[in-house]
Amino acid sequence: MRGKFIVVEGLEGAGKSSVVQLLVDRIEASGHRCVTTREPGGTAMAEAIRECVKQPWDETVAQETELMLMYAARRQLLINKIFPALDDNVWVVGDRHELSSLAYQGGGRQIDANIMATLSEITLKGFKPDLTLYLDVTPEKGLERARGRGELDRIEREGMAFFTRTRERYLELAAADKSIITVDAMQPMGAVHRDVSDRIKAFLTC
Amino acid sequence: MRGKFIVVEGLEGAGKSSVVQLLVDRIEASGHRCVTTREPGGTAMAEAIRECVKQPWDETVAQETELMLMYAARRQLLINKIFPALDDNVWVVGDRHELSSLAYQGGGRQIDANIMATLSEITLKGFKPDLTLYLDVTPEKGLERARGRGELDRIEREGMAFFTRTRERYLELAAADKSIITVDAMQPMGAVHRDVSDRIKAFLTC
Repeated sequence: MRGKFIVVEGLEGAGKSSVVQLLVDRIEASGHRCVTTREPGGTAMAEAIRECVKQPWDETVAQETELMLMYAARRQLLINKIFPALDDNVWVVGDRHELSSLAYQGGGRQIDANIMATLSEITLKGFKPDLTLYLDVTPEKGLERARGRGELDRIEREGMAFFTRTRERYLELAAADKSIITVDAMQPMGAVHRDVSDRIKAFLTC
Repeated sequence: MRGKFIVVEGLEGAGKSSVVQLLVDRIEASGHRCVTTREPGGTAMAEAIRECVKQPWDETVAQETELMLMYAARRQLLINKIFPALDDNVWVVGDRHELSSLAYQGGGRQIDANIMATLSEITLKGFKPDLTLYLDVTPEKGLERARGRGELDRIEREGMAFFTRTRERYLELAAADKSIITVDAMQPMGAVHRDVSDRIKAFLTC
């Protein structure tokens, strides 16, 4: 038996953390062992890479640098955490995964699709999550919630046009892939959790 | 007028540092302004990435991770240091550049040539040094010198077969590219410096 990899995606302030916790509760209640991950990060080296990519630097940060760091951290997490867990029949709930790179760097920063595809191939070699829940909010709503939590990191300080492109790319990618479920995260928290619970229930019993 | 980019390459203990200094002296004596760089590193962010890639980690470091970090640091150095210097008619002497990745990761770690070529294209987009001096030593001789200097980093702790493959790849690449000059660095230091001086004199006057 092999574990399943379930990912929660969305803009800052979409409510990912509480949905991750909800999924863990549901998965464990159904008798599976479960661990959580976050990206970029999740191993000592990947967290050091996260620190490199997130902090504000007194130099231009090239788009290509940011992208390669995201995939470098992802590779560490995959081989040291995600693959061993799944092999051990442990389920993994990820706070972000590759869809974030595709949306933020591919959509927000408009990096060439061939570059994106190549780094994906180098890093993931075709691996993908069993299920992704994309929590859809407008940038205005998400950033309003995120700002309420404290200081924004380097990427979170981007302008509204960047986040609008990122959300558009999320929606396009979700529409094109049946393993990605879009959840309306503009609803009150209770309704979001009810939608997520329905989705994971269907997934757990199929 | 545009500066020139001259790179010094070779295994640990090949004598790169003293050759870099010699080149700077000769270039400045001929009336050019000159700066030095090292890779990975050379900007605040690139040095943080260097720290990630060089330190021993308590987890498996994927080959792909190491490679993406090397190119991520290279991109930062290029856009923040090398390109601005060359544009300002300042010469740049680099302690390592892409040839190190091609030799260590491509040769030593035997990473697929297509992956290497793709990361090169993402990062360098065809840019290459005007001249590379490859200081050729056997791994035995180089590591004997390097060990005399103190503790070895994560990559320097690799086995002899790794460094033998790395040297072979250096020699192959140098043989195939007229802009790469191989210098016999097994000779006494005085003879190495004489050879380098002859090469740079010819380059400066042509």
